[in-house]
Amino acid sequence: MNAEQKAQKANDAALELSNVSEEDRNSLLRGIARSIEGKEDEILDANARDVEEAEGMLERGEYTQALVDRLKLDEAKVASIAEMVRGAAEQDDPIGETLTARELDEGMNLYKVSVPIGVVGSVFESRPDALPQIASLCLKSGNTAVLKGGSEAEGSNRVLFDAVREATAESDAVPDGWLQLIESREDVETLLGMDEYVDLLMPRGSTAFVRHVQDNTKIPVLGHTEGVCHVYVDEDADSEKAEDVAYDAKVDYPAACNAVETVLIHEDAADGFLPRIAERYDDANVEVRGDEATREVIDAEEATDDDWTTEYGDLMVAVRIVGSVAEAVGHINTYGSKHTDCIVTEDGERARRFMENVDSASVFHNVSTRFSDGFRYGLGAEVGISTGKTHARGPVGVEGLTTYKWYIEGDGHVVGEYRGEDARDFTHRGFDGEW
Amino acid sequence: MNAEQKAQKANDAALELSNVSEEDRNSLLRGIARSIEGKEDEILDANARDVEEAEGMLERGEYTQALVDRLKLDEAKVASIAEMVRGAAEQDDPIGETLTARELDEGMNLYKVSVPIGVVGSVFESRPDALPQIASLCLKSGNTAVLKGGSEAEGSNRVLFDAVREATAESDAVPDGWLQLIESREDVETLLGMDEYVDLLMPRGSTAFVRHVQDNTKIPVLGHTEGVCHVYVDEDADSEKAEDVAYDAKVDYPAACNAVETVLIHEDAADGFLPRIAERYDDANVEVRGDEATREVIDAEEATDDDWTTEYGDLMVAVRIVGSVAEAVGHINTYGSKHTDCIVTEDGERARRFMENVDSASVFHNVSTRFSDGFRYGLGAEVGISTGKTHARGPVGVEGLTTYKWYIEGDGHVVGEYRGEDARDFTHRGFDGEW
Repeated sequence: MNAEQKAQKANDAALELSNVSEEDRNSLLRGIARSIEGKEDEILDANARDVEEAEGMLERGEYTQALVDRLKLDEAKVASIAEMVRGAAEQDDPIGETLTARELDEGMNLYKVSVPIGVVGSVFESRPDALPQIASLCLKSGNTAVLKGGSEAEGSNRVLFDAVREATAESDAVPDGWLQLIESREDVETLLGMDEYVDLLMPRGSTAFVRHVQDNTKIPVLGHTEGVCHVYVDEDADSEKAEDVAYDAKVDYPAACNAVETVLIHEDAADGFLPRIAERYDDANVEVRGDEATREVIDAEEATDDDWTTEYGDLMVAVRIVGSVAEAVGHINTYGSKHTDCIVTEDGERARRFMENVDSASVFHNVSTRFSDGFRYGLGAEVGISTGKTHARGPVGVEGLTTYKWYIEGDGHVVGEYRGEDARDFTHRGFDGEW
Repeated sequence: MNAEQKAQKANDAALELSNVSEEDRNSLLRGIARSIEGKEDEILDANARDVEEAEGMLERGEYTQALVDRLKLDEAKVASIAEMVRGAAEQDDPIGETLTARELDEGMNLYKVSVPIGVVGSVFESRPDALPQIASLCLKSGNTAVLKGGSEAEGSNRVLFDAVREATAESDAVPDGWLQLIESREDVETLLGMDEYVDLLMPRGSTAFVRHVQDNTKIPVLGHTEGVCHVYVDEDADSEKAEDVAYDAKVDYPAACNAVETVLIHEDAADGFLPRIAERYDDANVEVRGDEATREVIDAEEATDDDWTTEYGDLMVAVRIVGSVAEAVGHINTYGSKHTDCIVTEDGERARRFMENVDSASVFHNVSTRFSDGFRYGLGAEVGISTGKTHARGPVGVEGLTTYKWYIEGDGHVVGEYRGEDARDFTHRGFDGEW
């Protein structure tokens, strides 16, 4: 089958999968977990071959060490993948939930009910755990899926795909074509054009790749591009909290999209805060770049305009001194990526002003930007982080793979009776009811 | 200003408008209603000139009578426009609502809060009441707007735009550039490219026009294309209900997108139902086209494959006899437009099967498809009907112009403490709280 036929097959299976019971979906997920455990040796063998090849590419300078690290599986990781799939089975069902129940008139009730979105297309890079994770989240939410993994993980992905498909192929509950794997780069471009068959795209990868997807498809995209996150240390910041937050936000995991890239400091806080955070950053090998005012207080490389828009993804941070909360907000809304930003202050009113005026998906007061994450938010398994404004914003749980349908149950009602003389009135009365 | 500058100006004003209080927004809406009433003469004069010109175009065969009819305003219509704007002021505030309040850990709370989407771009045709309606819905929901009306209503739209802008210009509460009017056809194309400044597009017009917008922009689009709606009369239908529903769904307002275009009839119901509905359709001048089996029961023109996908928007209906509910579902999912479909039956189990397997935004049991409408659903003012699956589906109220933001209030929390030995645990405990 070519990519178009695979997308069509996933589409053909979508309605049937959307009606598979919660019990069956969860039991299939547990079957997938067992299947992955059962194929541990095969998975590790295939992965070892992928890693060997990647190390060759690394020597030839075509891959980075980080890519090779992300690629590697071991027994513990395979076990944790199986656990993650089992965890999806334990979560609340995101579909079939009655979101609204409203009597429209006597004997006529309206229900808004969550349903799967249909067909999810996902393209991801290097990490082989992405395949079982995305497949599980799709199955949990009743969606069929077309997956494309990175070529560097092709062998690992193929075995993991077989593990998932074999576990579900044994069951009558789920339609055969629900999960599709595509493998070539050209197939990705085909997938982007399949708006007739694919309802949502979830690209995972570099900013450039996500942008490429956004720019070349009519299918809605759930994903994030840059994470240029800020910590603003206000004049009324508690200096210990400010240090802890600015340090954690950078050092905890610099490659994460929710790591801080620019620290903004109120001019009245600079003398107290800046030397101390600079020392802690220095101890952690964080390179600091500063604007002119910063470099009057500490030694630092000069920050240029480019630094304000750069996601370092590394042990680097830009620092700028500002004159007011308004200036901090202006900087963030101008140079930021609307991902996650934070104010550190003891002044609650000023915190609120900052939070309401920063136009980002997540805005925090006195906590590290690193909390911007589906698991930490309590959303369960994270589908991704969205920097878009529609459909889903910020960290997205499995409900991001759902939409809803409107049902009316009536008894021969016609709109003609709600018009003219003797027109009936709608009651529009909410009630506790389940579809 | 050119269209790009106008979009930029609306974008500049968006954050300020998003923070205008509910009280101020509602008071501005009441001011707009008064302003429209105060300009009644000007509005009617400008409209009379638009209508005169349109009638010239009608004579030259360039416009249809329906377009000229939609264009016409009179005193009663101006009064009802002002009332509609006042009605928006009375509605619940769609923004600032706490959708989730969750303790993440002691002293650290997460809030999900509804906020305006930002900048709404809307392009609409002929009806001059669209301009004050869309402007009011945007203001109500804290969004700035860039509007483009049909050229046939240019004079009416300009006076209505001035009425809205003058009413808000007097106030300090709302930023100056919040409402922008563009007038040329080329400006529409410019608007479609303004994904940097515009967050959502709401096209209103023909299917071809909405498709053109969808195909030529990266901005999310809230709108509907075809409404090819179905009524399926099951073998266990109550024949009176079936007749009433099939009649109302076609005749009540044939030009509406939620009017029925194809009636599907179970073969065992055909002999009883078909001659009676055909007689009622005939009395209402509805032209019936039927498949072969239909034409064995009643006199009708032959329906071709094209009929199954056509939105007549007129006193015409296609009829097809099917052998089962599954065949009806298959027909609808193949030829329909995923808008609104209905089953008439006394068999509840079969109704449910139909409703869960038809992949449409609205699926009804024993009520006319014409109920598919934001006002009838109790959503308040209707922003539009969406045939998309993400963000909003089916009839959309003013909450379709909102998104949300995540806030965390903490006290120096860092993620490093939630890892390793002695790791803190998240509590993830929902609570009744307002941001």
